[in-house]
Amino acid sequence: VVAVDAGPHRWRTIQLAPDGWSVEIVDQTRLPGDVVQRRLTTVAMVADAIRTMQVRGAPLIGATAAYGICLAVRADPSDGGLARAADLLRATRPTAVNLAAALARMRARLHGAPEGSRQEIAYAEAQRICEEDVAVNRAIGEHGLAVLKALLPHAQRPVQVLTHCNAGHLATVEWGTALAPVYRAHQEGVPVHVWVSETRPRNQGLLTAWELADAGVPHTVIADNAAGAIMARRAVDVCLVGTDRTTAAGDVCNKVGTYLKALAAHALGIPFYAAVPGSSIDWAAGGPDAVPIEERDGDEVRVVAGRGADGGAASVRLLAAAAPVANPAFDVTPARLVTGLITERGVCDASAAGLATLYPEHP
Amino acid sequence: VVAVDAGPHRWRTIQLAPDGWSVEIVDQTRLPGDVVQRRLTTVAMVADAIRTMQVRGAPLIGATAAYGICLAVRADPSDGGLARAADLLRATRPTAVNLAAALARMRARLHGAPEGSRQEIAYAEAQRICEEDVAVNRAIGEHGLAVLKALLPHAQRPVQVLTHCNAGHLATVEWGTALAPVYRAHQEGVPVHVWVSETRPRNQGLLTAWELADAGVPHTVIADNAAGAIMARRAVDVCLVGTDRTTAAGDVCNKVGTYLKALAAHALGIPFYAAVPGSSIDWAAGGPDAVPIEERDGDEVRVVAGRGADGGAASVRLLAAAAPVANPAFDVTPARLVTGLITERGVCDASAAGLATLYPEHP
Repeated sequence: VVAVDAGPHRWRTIQLAPDGWSVEIVDQTRLPGDVVQRRLTTVAMVADAIRTMQVRGAPLIGATAAYGICLAVRADPSDGGLARAADLLRATRPTAVNLAAALARMRARLHGAPEGSRQEIAYAEAQRICEEDVAVNRAIGEHGLAVLKALLPHAQRPVQVLTHCNAGHLATVEWGTALAPVYRAHQEGVPVHVWVSETRPRNQGLLTAWELADAGVPHTVIADNAAGAIMARRAVDVCLVGTDRTTAAGDVCNKVGTYLKALAAHALGIPFYAAVPGSSIDWAAGGPDAVPIEERDGDEVRVVAGRGADGGAASVRLLAAAAPVANPAFDVTPARLVTGLITERGVCDASAAGLATLYPEHP
Repeated sequence: VVAVDAGPHRWRTIQLAPDGWSVEIVDQTRLPGDVVQRRLTTVAMVADAIRTMQVRGAPLIGATAAYGICLAVRADPSDGGLARAADLLRATRPTAVNLAAALARMRARLHGAPEGSRQEIAYAEAQRICEEDVAVNRAIGEHGLAVLKALLPHAQRPVQVLTHCNAGHLATVEWGTALAPVYRAHQEGVPVHVWVSETRPRNQGLLTAWELADAGVPHTVIADNAAGAIMARRAVDVCLVGTDRTTAAGDVCNKVGTYLKALAAHALGIPFYAAVPGSSIDWAAGGPDAVPIEERDGDEVRVVAGRGADGGAASVRLLAAAAPVANPAFDVTPARLVTGLITERGVCDASAAGLATLYPEHP
């Protein structure tokens, strides 16, 4: 456990309840309209929270799954119970590698431990995963801050960052990945402005706008379609996104639409960085085709949630339930389009060789 | 006036009312939920219909503006009245070149004509503009059909077309531009399937889905962000879009987001065509920077329209009225990303030389 400065929001997206064992999250399907805390008491509730994206963001999914194992072990500390819980959790979301990694780590830690001590071991390990996430993001923030500072003299204005989806505080335990450098810049007085793409179909860009507003960071929301137009008018100095899984070759799998932004950045000579916690690197994935792309419910496209005229939660239907829809949740940006990976260990080229300089333990 | 086959929808998006002088349109802001016909009786109503996008699509905007001149001349046939009407209409939308072209054509036709004959001349000319639009689109359909047929043997499945926004029947008087080849293919028994990007912020993709469904053409709606993912999985054989203004160098200005799709198509070796009526070529625009990009109200991003739980028209707010938003309505796809331009005179390279082969009268 590494001691770190408090993040810009000074609250954690996941924490133990005052009872010391159940798990509190903020239901992100209700944000940004309502801040609704939910208390999860069973592994089934955790699986449901991940599947329905009450929690989302690769690092937070990993941390939440770890606590899911804690709740499972508390109810049934047997090997069978542990295996069933891990299977249940693993099946919730296929793309983010942090989920499988957190589960593997929890199982390895619990393997062979006496059933009577498993609960204590599990909670300690889940807590460590959370603390490490905070420390990793804080370090990404520091390395990314250097990237932003280097752009400032060329920008002749606040550094203009374009991001996609939410790779901020809400996607992690604290700080965020792609937004950590932005928050550090803001703390340090480096002028920064963020272009936030709305991120259909689930509009996680609204989460990004919400947490940037909360932290006082200047930003502007755009439709996803507008990213190319905004970049073409030279209003963007750098693209900065998160990742759900980065391959050993430096290909960046992230929320669908990331690839299109990377193509525009590449065509226009705008640097494109991904903020990559080591935990989201899939060392077994040799290239873009090795990443499974989750296909989600078409109703995410057919129905849009927001606020009604009375200010309450409401939704509108764009398409009939039977209307044919495809809804891939992720795409893969090939390494050749990625200027660099900002990791907790520093910035490297998006390539096997680049990653080897920072992670020599992975051959 | 050229005699043409009936379009697949067998109704026109703009026509004279039974009274013989007022103008009937379908309010496209109410589609696809409600089919609401509106009767326009003044040039101010026409300007409002164009500005608020009750009518939209470059060719239909041109035709509607022509009838706006008719209504103006009917009320005030003086040179001053004509000039004021043209100014009013020209100011409604800055990007689509058909608007300015239709106004220039109407004014040239009316120039020097006695006031007493202007009404008759104006209506005849507006009618000609409509008939020519139908004939032009029918010809684009024929040339585009050959493009689709040539792809079929390679496709080993229905030809997979990806389109953006609505460049269909609803964007024109009949047939559509980008969708005309699709409708012709469907009529000819050439199997075709259309990927329809939703087209935020105004979701004109829903108009495309609506008119394709009405014509029985298989299609699938995707979020704009998903276009790259769908193309990367080799599910698209050709991209086919409309244009609001094409430069003399072959750069294609179209609904914002088109550029991102063109970048993906180019990166993945997928042909990318624009359906370009000669009337939408701006011979005075030498390159991408010559096209003015309309910035529209941020509420188009902040608020989404659809159907409520009761099936009636409803909307939800995504962002507070004060939330910072940018909303460029168009982007420009550089000619180098465009495989070809499908015009009423045939298919040509997206270049000055290519256009010169089809339009030798423009040096």
